[in-house]
Order: sequence, then structure tokens, then C-alpha cells
Amino acid sequence: MYKFEHPLTEKVRIYLRVETLLEQVHQSADFHSPLEYQVFFRSLFDLLDIFEQIQLKPELAKDLEKQRLHYKHWLNVADVDQSKLQQVLNNISEVHKTLLAAERFGESLKQDRFLSTIRQRFSLLGGSCCFDLPTLHYWLHLPLEQRQQDIRHWTQHLSTVTTALDLWLKLTRDSASLKPKTARAGFYQAEVEGANILRLTTPIELGAYPMISGNKSRFSIKFMSFQTGFAYSQDVEFQLAIC
Amino acid sequence: MYKFEHPLTEKVRIYLRVETLLEQVHQSADFHSPLEYQVFFRSLFDLLDIFEQIQLKPELAKDLEKQRLHYKHWLNVADVDQSKLQQVLNNISEVHKTLLAAERFGESLKQDRFLSTIRQRFSLLGGSCCFDLPTLHYWLHLPLEQRQQDIRHWTQHLSTVTTALDLWLKLTRDSASLKPKTARAGFYQAEVEGANILRLTTPIELGAYPMISGNKSRFSIKFMSFQTGFAYSQDVEFQLAIC
Repeated sequence: MYKFEHPLTEKVRIYLRVETLLEQVHQSADFHSPLEYQVFFRSLFDLLDIFEQIQLKPELAKDLEKQRLHYKHWLNVADVDQSKLQQVLNNISEVHKTLLAAERFGESLKQDRFLSTIRQRFSLLGGSCCFDLPTLHYWLHLPLEQRQQDIRHWTQHLSTVTTALDLWLKLTRDSASLKPKTARAGFYQAEVEGANILRLTTPIELGAYPMISGNKSRFSIKFMSFQTGFAYSQDVEFQLAIC
Repeated sequence: MYKFEHPLTEKVRIYLRVETLLEQVHQSADFHSPLEYQVFFRSLFDLLDIFEQIQLKPELAKDLEKQRLHYKHWLNVADVDQSKLQQVLNNISEVHKTLLAAERFGESLKQDRFLSTIRQRFSLLGGSCCFDLPTLHYWLHLPLEQRQQDIRHWTQHLSTVTTALDLWLKLTRDSASLKPKTARAGFYQAEVEGANILRLTTPIELGAYPMISGNKSRFSIKFMSFQTGFAYSQDVEFQLAIC
């Protein structure tokens, strides 16, 4: 099964980018393979770039508060598991509080001397040679334990944004379930109201992938043939959730 | 032991960058860990950028020819293993011939439809989300065998530059051996004649790394403390080869 997600607003596009980068940081943080340090530092520096360009913390706080108000509507509604609901509400409140108390995302990491030394040169073409980044190469030769200690120190500074973003994305993704749809001659469109994310699944054997354009109120999906690069002209059965 | 190399000309700087990128392409080509595709494609695209900016093939051919002429001086010299020498000369001639017959580096890869689709978006901040690169994400879901076939196809196009560059760098590195030196109060400088690469080793326990500036005729090495980021003021015993 081929899973695909598409953001319907610019802000959610950034949320999904940040989610991907945070996942990459955490996945590569054990330096399991000798080149994973490249993914680790590049993802970390891409995150710092985004955090510098955009004040993400207040946006995320606002969006979590919206989710809390949305869930509050279900209080005292019959057939709704009230203890589970209270758990969700408490969780949102707690994460929201921690978020508000936190520094601007990336602030401490930005001031880390080692990270700033290597950050500016890291995006050079092939910039990871020892002569381009002598401090990084020295660090890579340090005992694993010492490097892991540094990594834990850096990734700790990402825990607040990770928890808050994961929660908002989980609540958003859980807000709708996948339903079968048909794209006639490879094309599907619909109107929506205040949606954030489209989630799709198609069988990988189809040999086609979705090209999506859309915004908060409407979207269209055009399936493209992977082999030819052109529009796929057959009907496509797929699953869609509008979250 | 901490090994360090520094190029003494702009061209050799590019050679060493290309060597690092080629190593990264080959090391990440088995997609052993789930994020290695990032290192693979980024290194490949960095290589293509360099190959587009610089006509590397004729430079490398000229440099190999220089090495061949240098080695020819040892023909019929007593105490030189003539059969080994002839082997080296034959090897250089063969690689040189293959190099001259090859296309401009990266030419075929540049025309690959799949690679060009993903190349322009790959350097976006966090640009490896599925909605940024739907074709890449579809490809990542293909059976491993099919992906490995594509990878073999792409890396084959790098075999000529890999062989030629590896040979030139091996001959250059072998041209001098490591000798013990002392950097008084962390500083060492010397004059040289037509050198290409400095190779250094220092014990990792030293806690200092070399900052080198230099050109074909002179160079200086200043050891820096990794902890403080400032100049290291003690004497440093290290090994140096001027190749």
C-alpha cells in the first residue's frame, strides 16, 4: 500500500515538513550507519532555518487551543466516553502549558558554539570534507559515548516542539477515517470546509502516484503514471481521508 | 589516531570533494538504513552540480599524464623494480585512454528523467516530504530489487571518474610518507615545491585539530583546541606527509 499525505494550507505544509525533519533527526541520532551524521546535522540545520524564518510556537499553541475547544463540545454528550475525552483534554492542556513556557524553538541550539561553527559550511557543495569542517571531523573521531552525550543534549531541546506537533498532527489525522473513492479517468476533485490534511492510500501495483493541488476549501487529485510521467487515464480506486 | 588531509590547490580541493561525494554515493548505495537514500541522492546531485560547473575530465586526464611522465623517469634506473614500474605505467595509460573516450562526467545522469524530476526540489528546506517529491516517494515504495537495478544503472555512469580519480589520488598520496614533526606552541610552517596534498596524523587524545592555510609553495598549520575553540598553545608532536 502506498500512503500519501498532502497539506491544504501553507502552515500545515510547514508542520509536515517540521515533522519529517524531526523524525529524521531522531531516527539518525544513534549514528547507526557511518553516514547518518549527515542526515542528522542536515535535518537539524534545516529545522533551525525554519525556526528562524517562522514564529512556529505561537501558531502551534493557537492550533492546539482550537483542538481543545473542538473536543470540549463533546463534554456531557451522551454516547461519548467521558473519561477518555477528559484524558484527551488534560493532555492538550498540559502540552499547551509546556509549549507556552518554552523558549522560541531552536533558540538554545542556535547559540551552541559547536553547532554554529559547522552550520554555515554544512550546506556547501560536498562541504563535509575534513578540510571544510575540521571541527566536525574531529568530533566524529571522539568516542561514541561522548558524541551520544552531545546528541542527547541537542535533541532534548527539540522535545517540546516534537511533543506539541505530534499531538496536533495525531488529533488532526484522527479527525477523519479513510473512505473508498474513485478517480474517474485518473481525476478526482471535491469541495471541503476548513480541512488541513488529505490522506490517501493507493495500491503500489497501480504504477501511479497522486499529484494534488488544493486549499482549505477545494482540492483536486490527478494520478500520474510513474513509468511515463504523463497523466494516468484509467479509473483509479483509492482511499481518502479529509482531515 | 586522527587523520587529516588538506588540499594545496583549488583543483585538488575539488578532487578531494569529488572523492568524498563518490565515496558517499557508493557507501549509501545499498540503502542499508532507511534514511541513506537522502545521502545517496544528495551526494549524487552535489556531484552533478560540480560536473556542470567544472570541466573535470580534461583536467584529470592532464594530471594523469603528468604522473605517467613522472614515473617514466624511473625506467631503466638501477634498484627500481622494473616490472612493478611497468605495471603502474600500463595502468595509468589504460585509465587515461578510458577517460579520454568517456562522455563529460555526469552527462547521462543529467538526462535521466527520474533524477531530473527530483533534483531541483531535493535541496528545498526539508524538501523530502512526500508532497514535495511524489515521484521519489513512489520510487522508495518500489521493491528493493527494482530500486537496486536503478541504482546500479546510475552508479555505473560514475565508474570512469571514480577509477581515474582514485588512481591519481593514490599515486599522489603514495608520493611521500609520514614524518614526525613538532608544531612549536601549536604552530608549524614550511615552504614546499609543487605539492598537492598535506596529510597529517595526530593522537585524538590531544584535544586539538589542525587549521591549515596554504598553496603550492608554502603552508602553515595552527592547532586549535576543540574544547575552547581558541589556538592551542602547547607544542604538538604530529606526523606530516607533503604529497
